[in-house]
Amino acid sequence: MAEKLRGACIIGQSGGPSAVINSSIYGAIKTAMESEEITRVLGAAHGIVGVISGELYDLDLEDPEELALLPNTPASALGSCRYKLADPDVDETDCKRILDIFKRYNVRYFFYNGGNDSMDTCEKIGRYLDKVGYECRVIGIPKTIDNDLYGTDHCPGFGSAAKYIATSLMEISKDTAVYDTGAITIVEIMGRNAGWLTASAALARDKCSGCGPDLIYPPEVPFDFEKFLDDVQRIYIEKKNVLVAVSEGVRDKTGKLISQYSSANAGQVDAFGHVQLGGLAAILASFVKARTGAKVRGIELSLLQRCAAHCASQTDIDEAFMAGKAAVEAALKGASGVMVGFEREYINGKYTCKTKLVPLKDVANYENKLPIEWISPEGNDVTQDFIDYALPLIQGEPTRKLVNSLPRFARLKKIPAKEA
Amino acid sequence: MAEKLRGACIIGQSGGPSAVINSSIYGAIKTAMESEEITRVLGAAHGIVGVISGELYDLDLEDPEELALLPNTPASALGSCRYKLADPDVDETDCKRILDIFKRYNVRYFFYNGGNDSMDTCEKIGRYLDKVGYECRVIGIPKTIDNDLYGTDHCPGFGSAAKYIATSLMEISKDTAVYDTGAITIVEIMGRNAGWLTASAALARDKCSGCGPDLIYPPEVPFDFEKFLDDVQRIYIEKKNVLVAVSEGVRDKTGKLISQYSSANAGQVDAFGHVQLGGLAAILASFVKARTGAKVRGIELSLLQRCAAHCASQTDIDEAFMAGKAAVEAALKGASGVMVGFEREYINGKYTCKTKLVPLKDVANYENKLPIEWISPEGNDVTQDFIDYALPLIQGEPTRKLVNSLPRFARLKKIPAKEA
Repeated sequence: MAEKLRGACIIGQSGGPSAVINSSIYGAIKTAMESEEITRVLGAAHGIVGVISGELYDLDLEDPEELALLPNTPASALGSCRYKLADPDVDETDCKRILDIFKRYNVRYFFYNGGNDSMDTCEKIGRYLDKVGYECRVIGIPKTIDNDLYGTDHCPGFGSAAKYIATSLMEISKDTAVYDTGAITIVEIMGRNAGWLTASAALARDKCSGCGPDLIYPPEVPFDFEKFLDDVQRIYIEKKNVLVAVSEGVRDKTGKLISQYSSANAGQVDAFGHVQLGGLAAILASFVKARTGAKVRGIELSLLQRCAAHCASQTDIDEAFMAGKAAVEAALKGASGVMVGFEREYINGKYTCKTKLVPLKDVANYENKLPIEWISPEGNDVTQDFIDYALPLIQGEPTRKLVNSLPRFARLKKIPAKEA
Repeated sequence: MAEKLRGACIIGQSGGPSAVINSSIYGAIKTAMESEEITRVLGAAHGIVGVISGELYDLDLEDPEELALLPNTPASALGSCRYKLADPDVDETDCKRILDIFKRYNVRYFFYNGGNDSMDTCEKIGRYLDKVGYECRVIGIPKTIDNDLYGTDHCPGFGSAAKYIATSLMEISKDTAVYDTGAITIVEIMGRNAGWLTASAALARDKCSGCGPDLIYPPEVPFDFEKFLDDVQRIYIEKKNVLVAVSEGVRDKTGKLISQYSSANAGQVDAFGHVQLGGLAAILASFVKARTGAKVRGIELSLLQRCAAHCASQTDIDEAFMAGKAAVEAALKGASGVMVGFEREYINGKYTCKTKLVPLKDVANYENKLPIEWISPEGNDVTQDFIDYALPLIQGEPTRKLVNSLPRFARLKKIPAKEA
């Protein structure tokens, strides 16, 4: 047991939002407020940018009832950033400024809630503080709908996004099948380098007759355009309605993003002679239209897949909370330079999840992709192994506070913190 | 009280799907099955197309437990069509064929579930059957997310789509506000001629701090491009984050659809020198980007807004059921050539809804648009009158059957009906 360390903590969030990211900070805030050693709970406005600029909120002054709404409030409640912190071994400016703020507020605990880049930030800060001998425990709290963090079975945020994608694809497949004239629908899903979310489309299958995607293209394998067109055309001829799930990040074998192709190649122009361009879904749609002559629609799930708190997984909300709580508990026990990770266990066949600690320096350097053996040999589907992996993560309906049947999100006062 | 009429009924669905359209046919199927006079309950495959082609399902052979899942199953369970029936006063071919089928199956009740075009179909059939003296009661059951049917306070399907739009806009506005760098987000909403759905974006406001759209553009008033750009830029300068809701059907004062503009006019090309084109949201985004230099994102809610049964309004589901039930009850009492409509009442300040009957010939000829007085004088917002109108329609969370936390939709056997 490490010796007790008294002082303030800062909690920050960074990177893209998720439906459950605020459940993690609620777990951290609540646990920190309950601890004796943590004397103050501060929030960083827009992640590390708020620390550097000295924009800190005094979370102790927030209404506990509002804080309790955080687990069902999507998107980073404290604000986020995409700031690449200078490596302190090269340029100490950022870290010096952070140290200065930490000293002024007597910050001894730093919790950073985010994805790969956030863990990189966290690692640099921890390394610098170690070097200068400022005692502060630095812990990463995982978050990413992309599910690509190293050292953890899965990431908070993924389960809810996966559930939204599966639910929406079930609904879309019902919608697009109503006419007897046939239709091809191409749904573009987030995850530039990792196919976890695209694979989640497969969860839409077998829960109802005729639901779910016919073809799934994760970004881990090269996207063969001719093979894709053949696949779609074959299924279109076979069953008239085709539903395709495709990652925004699919690339051809030369590494070029398909979203950077021009539909001019498809010879496809609209009624006004304009070449059809747009996102990946629109580009693929124009090629498929040119090949098949079918009614083709491209749908981009866009931001909705990462912020749909109304369709979150309670398992994900609970685990996100657990990650935040575990981060504070680990810090109180002396841990630093680590991220909280998840480990799954099956107890009597029942999925359970517990936390572990992973060195930040490992997390910051790796990206956890969809295993190749979970992708079908043809590169256009995923295996049952993926379903077995993902299904436990989407379970449970959230109990949300509603006003007039619409979500009531947390309203934070965000009172600027005074110096210690 | 009309004399009792014994015979089969046909129930059909047509036009675009909705989240609750199957609740209406469930109301009709259940009530028809319980009646003595209706001897058989048949479903038309793909609406009137299935009647013409003789593709009918024997709904009496369906599993009652599966039928009971219809209220939470989105999109036309019987299949839909977009077939313009020939006017029997001009060309009797279609109607003769329908009469032939009706005779072969002894059909004495015809219930048609759809929007404006479906009511037109219904009216033609009723008129023809009257003319030839074939006794059959023809009733329209309203359905349209667009909420543009004449003679009814509102339409089944609208409340659920409005709720999905409001919920999603609340979530999107949380998501797009997390960075301190500012962002402009343009959300394209369905409703080509009527602004009811676009106006529903306003429901997202005031339920949480900073939620909801800043600007709302329904299609009922001409879209002034310069004014639009000025509006967006002003709010962007004022508060950094701007959320815009815009109807897919906005037109300039010459009547030209803005979605047919080319972003080439904005001088906006991507990194590869391509002119950005796409849906309305993408086009507006490229113009706004050119004007403001801001981070701009266009989002098309696409099919999701009309099929999101997971975010349906229980009020809407219940009223949709009531409409189907009322159609059968009215027919049993002798009504024909009418559509079921809704009338709202406030009893002790509490919203209630009851059904009425509207002549089909009136419904088929009018489109019910968002009242001009509910649109702000500047054409970029809606008034409190709209909120008061729409809010009761989105109330109540649906109780859905779930398997593995994903929706379990109805699975119909669709057994072809034998001739009587």
